[in-house]
Amino acid sequence: MHDVVEIGLGKPAQRGYHLDDIAIVPSRRTRDVDDVSTAWQLDAYPFRIPCVAHPSDATMSPDTVIALGRLGGLGVLNVEGLWTRYEDPSKILSELAGLGEDAGATARLQEVYAEPIHPDLIGERVRQIREGGATVSVRVSPQHTLALAPVVLDAGVDILVIQGTIVSAEHVSTVEQPLNLKEFIADLDLPVIVGGCTNYQTALHLMRTGAAGVIVGVGADEWSTTDTVLGIRVPMATAIADAAEARRDYLDETGGRYVHLIADGDLQTSGDIAKALGCGADAVMLGEPLSLAEDAPAGGAWWHSAASHPKLPRGAFGVAEEPLGSLEKILYGPADDPDGKLNLFGGLKRAMAKCGYRDLKEFQKVGLVLDR
Amino acid sequence: MHDVVEIGLGKPAQRGYHLDDIAIVPSRRTRDVDDVSTAWQLDAYPFRIPCVAHPSDATMSPDTVIALGRLGGLGVLNVEGLWTRYEDPSKILSELAGLGEDAGATARLQEVYAEPIHPDLIGERVRQIREGGATVSVRVSPQHTLALAPVVLDAGVDILVIQGTIVSAEHVSTVEQPLNLKEFIADLDLPVIVGGCTNYQTALHLMRTGAAGVIVGVGADEWSTTDTVLGIRVPMATAIADAAEARRDYLDETGGRYVHLIADGDLQTSGDIAKALGCGADAVMLGEPLSLAEDAPAGGAWWHSAASHPKLPRGAFGVAEEPLGSLEKILYGPADDPDGKLNLFGGLKRAMAKCGYRDLKEFQKVGLVLDR
Amino acid sequence: MHDVVEIGLGKPAQRGYHLDDIAIVPSRRTRDVDDVSTAWQLDAYPFRIPCVAHPSDATMSPDTVIALGRLGGLGVLNVEGLWTRYEDPSKILSELAGLGEDAGATARLQEVYAEPIHPDLIGERVRQIREGGATVSVRVSPQHTLALAPVVLDAGVDILVIQGTIVSAEHVSTVEQPLNLKEFIADLDLPVIVGGCTNYQTALHLMRTGAAGVIVGVGADEWSTTDTVLGIRVPMATAIADAAEARRDYLDETGGRYVHLIADGDLQTSGDIAKALGCGADAVMLGEPLSLAEDAPAGGAWWHSAASHPKLPRGAFGVAEEPLGSLEKILYGPADDPDGKLNLFGGLKRAMAKCGYRDLKEFQKVGLVLDR
Amino acid sequence: MHDVVEIGLGKPAQRGYHLDDIAIVPSRRTRDVDDVSTAWQLDAYPFRIPCVAHPSDATMSPDTVIALGRLGGLGVLNVEGLWTRYEDPSKILSELAGLGEDAGATARLQEVYAEPIHPDLIGERVRQIREGGATVSVRVSPQHTLALAPVVLDAGVDILVIQGTIVSAEHVSTVEQPLNLKEFIADLDLPVIVGGCTNYQTALHLMRTGAAGVIVGVGADEWSTTDTVLGIRVPMATAIADAAEARRDYLDETGGRYVHLIADGDLQTSGDIAKALGCGADAVMLGEPLSLAEDAPAGGAWWHSAASHPKLPRGAFGVAEEPLGSLEKILYGPADDPDGKLNLFGGLKRAMAKCGYRDLKEFQKVGLVLDR
Repeated sequence: MHDVVEIGLGKPAQRGYHLDDIAIVPSRRTRDVDDVSTAWQLDAYPFRIPCVAHPSDATMSPDTVIALGRLGGLGVLNVEGLWTRYEDPSKILSELAGLGEDAGATARLQEVYAEPIHPDLIGERVRQIREGGATVSVRVSPQHTLALAPVVLDAGVDILVIQGTIVSAEHVSTVEQPLNLKEFIADLDLPVIVGGCTNYQTALHLMRTGAAGVIVGVGADEWSTTDTVLGIRVPMATAIADAAEARRDYLDETGGRYVHLIADGDLQTSGDIAKALGCGADAVMLGEPLSLAEDAPAGGAWWHSAASHPKLPRGAFGVAEEPLGSLEKILYGPADDPDGKLNLFGGLKRAMAKCGYRDLKEFQKVGLVLDR
Repeated sequence: MHDVVEIGLGKPAQRGYHLDDIAIVPSRRTRDVDDVSTAWQLDAYPFRIPCVAHPSDATMSPDTVIALGRLGGLGVLNVEGLWTRYEDPSKILSELAGLGEDAGATARLQEVYAEPIHPDLIGERVRQIREGGATVSVRVSPQHTLALAPVVLDAGVDILVIQGTIVSAEHVSTVEQPLNLKEFIADLDLPVIVGGCTNYQTALHLMRTGAAGVIVGVGADEWSTTDTVLGIRVPMATAIADAAEARRDYLDETGGRYVHLIADGDLQTSGDIAKALGCGADAVMLGEPLSLAEDAPAGGAWWHSAASHPKLPRGAFGVAEEPLGSLEKILYGPADDPDGKLNLFGGLKRAMAKCGYRDLKEFQKVGLVLDR
Repeated sequence: MHDVVEIGLGKPAQRGYHLDDIAIVPSRRTRDVDDVSTAWQLDAYPFRIPCVAHPSDATMSPDTVIALGRLGGLGVLNVEGLWTRYEDPSKILSELAGLGEDAGATARLQEVYAEPIHPDLIGERVRQIREGGATVSVRVSPQHTLALAPVVLDAGVDILVIQGTIVSAEHVSTVEQPLNLKEFIADLDLPVIVGGCTNYQTALHLMRTGAAGVIVGVGADEWSTTDTVLGIRVPMATAIADAAEARRDYLDETGGRYVHLIADGDLQTSGDIAKALGCGADAVMLGEPLSLAEDAPAGGAWWHSAASHPKLPRGAFGVAEEPLGSLEKILYGPADDPDGKLNLFGGLKRAMAKCGYRDLKEFQKVGLVLDR
Repeated sequence: MHDVVEIGLGKPAQRGYHLDDIAIVPSRRTRDVDDVSTAWQLDAYPFRIPCVAHPSDATMSPDTVIALGRLGGLGVLNVEGLWTRYEDPSKILSELAGLGEDAGATARLQEVYAEPIHPDLIGERVRQIREGGATVSVRVSPQHTLALAPVVLDAGVDILVIQGTIVSAEHVSTVEQPLNLKEFIADLDLPVIVGGCTNYQTALHLMRTGAAGVIVGVGADEWSTTDTVLGIRVPMATAIADAAEARRDYLDETGGRYVHLIADGDLQTSGDIAKALGCGADAVMLGEPLSLAEDAPAGGAWWHSAASHPKLPRGAFGVAEEPLGSLEKILYGPADDPDGKLNLFGGLKRAMAKCGYRDLKEFQKVGLVLDR
């Protein structure tokens, strides 16, 4: 049972907790860090680390999808981003890399994303990634899934990510034929990841569409403004734990289908990753932390997909002071800075070792303390 | 039942929550944004958006009342403000627009408001607004209602707003004949909006005066100092929800009179507006957000009525760095800034769509999370 | 019953609330401000406002004691301060007025207070105040009460204030003969104010010594460091409410002796004063707010008595940017600044009016909201 | 019973409280400060103050171990630090003293700690300390205990400190033979202090290893990044109180073995020390507060052992603006600054006196208030 508060007469609100509100608690056992595994597998695809890239153009180009794949994570290209709007977006990415954090940046984002998507470029990008040897995963928005799916499937992807800020299993529209996720997924024979969602009910219904993975959260970080623009703020610790309960209930009602939870939001440091997994996530979706790599597509600039919305942008344009190091250094260290942004998965591994856990599934049971 | 805490032996306090403490929670359904309506109607007056202007001279001149009306909102002119103290206040408004945020600004406000009200100017202003084609709504303070009402009614207003920081249905005075709101309103045949109030009891008693609308809150924003000067601070989420309970109870006791709640306080962004409506408000009263329009009367300066009190000012004088854009852009976008201050009602509409709601009355039932 | 939390296994802590955590709540009635009285009376001494000065040399000289008395409050001179250590402390006060807020200020305070107290100067200061026509009230520390009392009483004071950071009714010492407050007070026939104290038990025992008034709190403000040095932090809302319960219980056990509670701490603005009285205090003790008067003894500098302790100072030396205005303007306005530091008791009066109360005793029952 | 919250469906978290969340509460009695004792004894070793040095090279050299011993505390040398890696580390310490707080500092720390430990230097350092007349106490990490113990014991230490960020009684490894603390300690006939730990279970199991003292906390202060890197954050008030319950239970199960609790974390001021002891600690472990002494080994620079980890540093390199004064002044005053960093144990003594307590064991029962 949730902790429900009556904020006013007859008006209940559920209490929610952010990852910042909690910390993980060591048990009475510790373990050698070399005995700890961070391996994760989605459907037939094994990964050394539970790391999925947030499909922003600021982090994922065909090259970085390949690089992340080689390093043991899952890269995802946004097929509604710059790489399918421009034959060669490198000049635009360079320009964006040079923009400052002023008001004009949003207007410029809106302009460059006003260019239409060229479906033929989708096939081209998929080929590039496949030739690079990586698992091919692309992101489409729910609105464009029906239109883009044929092209995407034709191009031959391994994992399809259908992602919007908020995705539900039941989209209602009198304006256009809405996507019926359940029917759509049933017709595919590749694993689909779908989200974001923020609570037990939506997570459960998304699981029932047949998705292999569900994204929990709306990707909120300090650049996101979903909160101020829409009034929607997701306490990630609660959202992940609630979705994990949906995963258990769905596992029970299906007699064994395990749907993976990918946490997307409030994730800056290895400590945040450890907490998200400790709340019950199977993997994390990283955006801005990967934009700090010296080989990131936009040279340290960072923006969400929603930041370029033509009428209602919901994310600020951020610029890192200087790159932190290679993608490998960000994922595996060695760190020469103590702030938790380098050696992200070495940090996770050590946290698991300090708490005595051997693998990620066990670590979902780690003790938590609520101290804020 | 409220959550009551004993802050010391024998001393109870009710727990209250601010809009910042809560967020709205998507449901398991989403909806096409084009299927969502933000229409609102007060008595015989329909509005495209649930937007009432805070009657400060910083936002409302006869011209901006007309402009807001054309855009689908309700403008309210303060007939105890500069427009009834000066034949042509434009020179003073220009001067105020040029003042900085220093201590002297308050003293200057006190001076310009020391000029007496000229009753004949009231009729003049009302005519201007009526000629502009807008619904005519003016604000009087409870103290001056008896004196100014004849002039105001004579001039022919559509909606009368009787507003003070705190207004009760039972004002006690041995010094002068107090306003009996119930008798006063019974004698009128136009809708009256009255407030602010901060709790269930006061809201219910104000509803019983026959008011068509009740203002909830004291208009507090970051420039307001009601808190430091009077020790009164209104947790808006709680105040709105409590007043909504009073609305339900009054609806029941009258067999069907629905009194509209207009939230006034803590409203800066489209997210705040969504939250206030989600707590149960029927409309929002906006002050400072409208002062950022490039056509605002005081060129971006902002002050509450209470900021010019001759002996006990209760609001700071604020100056915006630069205007955000036209009034239309503030209300309907397109936004080119992601901080929630542009496209206020486009943001509201999208929040409603993300949560699966069709109209404002339904949206009052949206789920809430308490996460701070 | 207090809200008690187990912070760890077997370790309870009482929940406490600061004045900042709460706000006062208007009732369904409002009242004309001219019908409100802020009068207060201690023993035979009536005051227009419930204002006692904190006996710091930064606020109270013989002249300002007289000035505050004329304005309707109670000034208190510290007879262990500069006025009894120096024939003419004006040169030292001027020097202190010129010191900045750097580390050296504390060392200089320690030096100037190292000068011994000259008992003959006590009589001199008392005479000055009496000649000025004010109620004569002086402060001694519990440690020096036995030594200084004969001189003080001989000089003829009206109200004696025995004040230390923490004063108990039962001081234990094997080193020197401790002050037995109960016997000491029984022998006097003038009203004694004693404190500070922080909880029900101590307040009740101090009442049983026969004191006419009990100081609640340790005078903590943003310059005080009692918290960081001693680990003692007083949530004033809780402390005042608890002491008010002790006052009720003592009233009952004595069949009618009413002991006045003087709140000392967390008081910067008229809003804070309203909240302290709303929690149950009879009067407030003001230090730094009075140091901002243009006629304050140390020209805007501010320090607590404890700030000059030779081995363990517990308060920083503060310097106001510029005086706010005359003492009269600080107490009664008119304010030309909206931040609650001017017109302190006009603000209180208006808060009482907005909440519908007529006098201070009634206002102790005002509703509270806990919103932080 | 702990206060347990369900942060999401089926996911409990224990509520924890930091020292900053609480304060100590005076009782109805006060005591003469000269009647208060801060004496502490561990095994056969008596100390004037309950002060153990955090074994960082920034605070503890052979000379400062001796100096702290003379002043009545317990100095601890890290035998895995610079003093056993370099014949004469003074040049390196000087260099570190001159580093700023930039990113490069961590890399430099990693370099200087890459030098191997020279076991013969261990004996040399122990001899230096013994000749200086101080109790000889050295720190080893759990990983190196088996390798270094023979050398350390041979050199003849009085008290052995086995300290890592998180130490458990049950370390699991398939990679190398793990340290069996219980067997290891049983074979020794000198008192062992072991830790850090963060909760009841781990504390109890560490007590059962036969340790004379258990370190509670992970040494977190504002320079520590254990939180951001590992997701582990220790609410010290709760951790200490929980460990105190383990101490009581262990005392009961053994029929009288009293294990000392040494709090390590969140300790900056005398107020913090008072609160840690009031929660149930027997002594405090001080790091950064001692690095501010003018005779500190690294001239005001401060870093944890974990700050030099070669792959995953977990602490920032800090530099004090200027030394606060001699070690004696820091411990015993006189203070000429009111911020609680000077006269640490004079402050503790006065806090005990204000609350009416005579010795440390009694003071563990002091009342607490939870006010944040």
